Amino acid sequence: MIITPEQEADIKAQTQTQSPTHRPVSPGLEAMLFNPIKVLDHGFVRVVDYMGDDSAIVQAARVSYGRGTKKVSEDRGLIRYLMRHRHTTPFEMCEIKYHIRLPIFVARQWIRHRTASVNEYSARYSIMDREFYLPEPEVIAAQSTTNHQGRGDKLSAEQAHGVLSLLRQDAERCYDNYENLLRPEAEGGYGLARELARMNLTLNSYSQWYWKINLHNLFHFLELRIDPHAQYEIRMYAEAMLKTVQAWVPIACEAFEDYRRGAVTFSATMMKVLGRMLKGENVEQDNSGLSKREWVEMMEILNQYTA
Amino acid sequence: MIITPEQEADIKAQTQTQSPTHRPVSPGLEAMLFNPIKVLDHGFVRVVDYMGDDSAIVQAARVSYGRGTKKVSEDRGLIRYLMRHRHTTPFEMCEIKYHIRLPIFVARQWIRHRTASVNEYSARYSIMDREFYLPEPEVIAAQSTTNHQGRGDKLSAEQAHGVLSLLRQDAERCYDNYENLLRPEAEGGYGLARELARMNLTLNSYSQWYWKINLHNLFHFLELRIDPHAQYEIRMYAEAMLKTVQAWVPIACEAFEDYRRGAVTFSATMMKVLGRMLKGENVEQDNSGLSKREWVEMMEILNQYTA
Amino acid sequence: MIITPEQEADIKAQTQTQSPTHRPVSPGLEAMLFNPIKVLDHGFVRVVDYMGDDSAIVQAARVSYGRGTKKVSEDRGLIRYLMRHRHTTPFEMCEIKYHIRLPIFVARQWIRHRTASVNEYSARYSIMDREFYLPEPEVIAAQSTTNHQGRGDKLSAEQAHGVLSLLRQDAERCYDNYENLLRPEAEGGYGLARELARMNLTLNSYSQWYWKINLHNLFHFLELRIDPHAQYEIRMYAEAMLKTVQAWVPIACEAFEDYRRGAVTFSATMMKVLGRMLKGENVEQDNSGLSKREWVEMMEILNQYTA
Amino acid sequence: MIITPEQEADIKAQTQTQSPTHRPVSPGLEAMLFNPIKVLDHGFVRVVDYMGDDSAIVQAARVSYGRGTKKVSEDRGLIRYLMRHRHTTPFEMCEIKYHIRLPIFVARQWIRHRTASVNEYSARYSIMDREFYLPEPEVIAAQSTTNHQGRGDKLSAEQAHGVLSLLRQDAERCYDNYENLLRPEAEGGYGLARELARMNLTLNSYSQWYWKINLHNLFHFLELRIDPHAQYEIRMYAEAMLKTVQAWVPIACEAFEDYRRGAVTFSATMMKVLGRMLKGENVEQDNSGLSKREWVEMMEILNQYTA
Repeated sequence: MIITPEQEADIKAQTQTQSPTHRPVSPGLEAMLFNPIKVLDHGFVRVVDYMGDDSAIVQAARVSYGRGTKKVSEDRGLIRYLMRHRHTTPFEMCEIKYHIRLPIFVARQWIRHRTASVNEYSARYSIMDREFYLPEPEVIAAQSTTNHQGRGDKLSAEQAHGVLSLLRQDAERCYDNYENLLRPEAEGGYGLARELARMNLTLNSYSQWYWKINLHNLFHFLELRIDPHAQYEIRMYAEAMLKTVQAWVPIACEAFEDYRRGAVTFSATMMKVLGRMLKGENVEQDNSGLSKREWVEMMEILNQYTA
Repeated sequence: MIITPEQEADIKAQTQTQSPTHRPVSPGLEAMLFNPIKVLDHGFVRVVDYMGDDSAIVQAARVSYGRGTKKVSEDRGLIRYLMRHRHTTPFEMCEIKYHIRLPIFVARQWIRHRTASVNEYSARYSIMDREFYLPEPEVIAAQSTTNHQGRGDKLSAEQAHGVLSLLRQDAERCYDNYENLLRPEAEGGYGLARELARMNLTLNSYSQWYWKINLHNLFHFLELRIDPHAQYEIRMYAEAMLKTVQAWVPIACEAFEDYRRGAVTFSATMMKVLGRMLKGENVEQDNSGLSKREWVEMMEILNQYTA
Repeated sequence: MIITPEQEADIKAQTQTQSPTHRPVSPGLEAMLFNPIKVLDHGFVRVVDYMGDDSAIVQAARVSYGRGTKKVSEDRGLIRYLMRHRHTTPFEMCEIKYHIRLPIFVARQWIRHRTASVNEYSARYSIMDREFYLPEPEVIAAQSTTNHQGRGDKLSAEQAHGVLSLLRQDAERCYDNYENLLRPEAEGGYGLARELARMNLTLNSYSQWYWKINLHNLFHFLELRIDPHAQYEIRMYAEAMLKTVQAWVPIACEAFEDYRRGAVTFSATMMKVLGRMLKGENVEQDNSGLSKREWVEMMEILNQYTA
Repeated sequence: MIITPEQEADIKAQTQTQSPTHRPVSPGLEAMLFNPIKVLDHGFVRVVDYMGDDSAIVQAARVSYGRGTKKVSEDRGLIRYLMRHRHTTPFEMCEIKYHIRLPIFVARQWIRHRTASVNEYSARYSIMDREFYLPEPEVIAAQSTTNHQGRGDKLSAEQAHGVLSLLRQDAERCYDNYENLLRPEAEGGYGLARELARMNLTLNSYSQWYWKINLHNLFHFLELRIDPHAQYEIRMYAEAMLKTVQAWVPIACEAFEDYRRGAVTFSATMMKVLGRMLKGENVEQDNSGLSKREWVEMMEILNQYTA
């Protein structure tokens, strides 16, 4: 269970209430509001508020052009132009607020993005839930042999089972003792302050927070965290959030997919190599000006498009 | 005229359109949406979008307390507690977007607040309006003799009239020549690039921008800019904005008035003086531990409350 | 042992090397550079770089005053004036970089300050140390009965001993299994990816980071984290850092102590109460206009100065 | 004259003084410290302080890798890797502080970068210099016929002369009246407050500020402002600053030139076109999937590398 019956009742009540507003409304996102999208085993992402839509981006961009400007570009063209040329400020005019439940080790990666507003569940003030992340067996993998910070081959079913046993036992024992530490002395515990007891929890314990960010910074977050080099667990959150962005600002999201997520950047030296290739020259690493590592990186990219 | 007939028609259309939303709605602010509040002679402030209300602050604060917390405090008490103890993150959960028309020298002070999103009318791209700020005679004042960065006594009507003549003539002549510079060569002008011609304008020319900020940072802006030491012109904008905040988040705004705008901070040394005074001691500057300047500052404050 | 012999050799080498520079130099801080100040059982704070000193604050403030300004105030007076009147930008002109070793649950509080630059030891890339925080018995305390997020009375020696046993056992067992998870399959382990294995660690495990911040934002951090309401563990770090700031910018630090750390803020309503008291009136809570909670807060403060 | 004799004496004194420090020192930048680099007719850029060098970037990156990591990459390789893969935080560990003199219309573009610390000369407090920007005749150009926010062809010598006459006359007359407004009533002026009189100045008046930024944000600023689409005047400042960065962190700067300034980004659709071209296919706009505008943009880029 990822949400409590009480929360479920709240969500039901909220989705059945509507009020009139003069503000821009995104019908696609209204339909998703409040409902949790499940992520990992006990996590979720749900949108709880938003501001602006595709038209708000256009409105902000147009203030720069003012009166007397012919409306050459319809909205889609303008949004794509802004994205392509990294005119980022109009995208800051849209804002979204999420309620997210996530393991602490994921929260630690996430919080490195400093451009959002955050209110996290406080383990100084409240008692943490007995819930911790245990990966699906098929994503339990060995240390990569080529990438110092990544996963390599999947573990065998048997090995994965062993891993899960260890993770589960340690998390449960730590949580049991967390409860012992908190339990009043009169009831056989220690009555320890919550702010101290929490240190006995493992890093896969679930926390939750409200997280609010503007669209420009959200695209930056998604670009980094949806990347195949991002850790699988945070990637699952980024993918769930991308769905909400598609519903919210479909035109901006399409431009993001084309000009940011699917885009490729070549260095000055790589551009020279590319020019020679386009002229039909047969370029090899040793006459390319690129290091071995860069050459490999470049060839891997080009192979995806010439295969 | 501060808005064009075209803008007026837009505003009329927007205020007559409503859509249903599941989001929190602030009825007070909905009633003000889009309508310009006049500031100075040709400026305005108008709210064009917002997100959240008083309940959003409470919701964010409560995630910290989680389950098992008794709801001791009703919303007003909680918001006041948060403001009093500078728990600022819940106030970041509300966001507001303004369309503002303001003189360039005011825009230069304003932009020093780095925590907002801004899209300004571009004088590289578009032609500036023939409109510049001319102060009302009663706010035209001499350099203060005590404060290096403030105004002192009002000028006489005659002198104020002389000031206005100079300001008007120079602004108009500069604008005339701005137009000459821009006018195509074929029509007897210079056809100069807009990005160059604009440098001929005076600093009281009006610009405009979209400006979006969260409630915490807005309160910080208002605290500094509504202060009597702020320049009169930016203060007028801050006062117009404060009215919109009162309509939007009345409980938070009341707490701001009590704990921030009307609050007084005493230094460690001043607190010792205050303690001695409360015990009935007759403290003088020379036995206070305060510098002359600090002593005067402290006495001016206390006199306001003991008069 | 809080630093490795290798690090100790590095520090020795660095402190024995000097180069000439034209930049401002803070002799007090030069003498402390690189050397770790021990915090908690296995943590430390050490300054690894800095920029500017008291004179840099003055220099930045004076650019505002430009030519033609008489140098009324000598440096100390000017710095105190800036601090008292919250002219914060000149303090941003100084910058300091720390290397810090700290438990993860402290790092999670710390990182909420978004205005610093951070590089943390990566547990995706590297193996965490077998070191975890175990509090001194005298700071092991019960949950406060009056403050939902604080500590109350000290636990008895026996109870504290029980707490420490639990914390130590769980941390050690979790670390043992972390090692099992990492150990190659060929050696009887699981060869699990580091980014997954780390989730088995407890929140009192030590991490480390480089943390760089400007003086204005550092003062804000210190004001909040040196406060008696801050959790004891992070307070110990704040106190260690305050010592480095005293050595670095002694005049600014003295102003901080007087106008920020030791300062008291009264709300608009409290100021009315204070005014009546100063006039000799006997004010009681029920005729004060203050809530019970605010009245108690105010009396606790005043009692400190009138006792 | 861009600096006063008093400033020149200060600079001479500063460059003749040296103190020993344990901090990293950049010999290249030490040799440039304090000396103004002339920009435009009356502007300058000069470095007044800095923190860190190439080795500080490496040091911060290596904390992530911790013990047990083989030092595969020497420093240059590591810095290039970080730049290529947009691992930006280590570049935040270096900081630089400039003193800059610049026309107000340039300052207004510049200040849109919100990630720096700024102290500007205050025209509320002090009297502005009689100095304004007048472009060299060869950079006086007509409005571009293809780009709404750019310059096109150079004006004729005669036309340029006319432009300069207008700009000079208006700036001088406005400054004369600024002085009239400020002059005490007893001396035949108006004694107007400085904060009001300044509004009579034109936007090409020179201001000055201290501007402090970290290396990551500085690279971002340079990438945008050194671009051929940036306005010529701000570009001149960016180019002067790039020289200081080359002296300060030569390895990072070389990586910036290769992977950022000289890099080219292709969208997802453009990459498909590129793949087809590399396979020898003859792609035309109408079968490319690109809009006309994008096709032109792409061909212009490729032609630079295949010519």
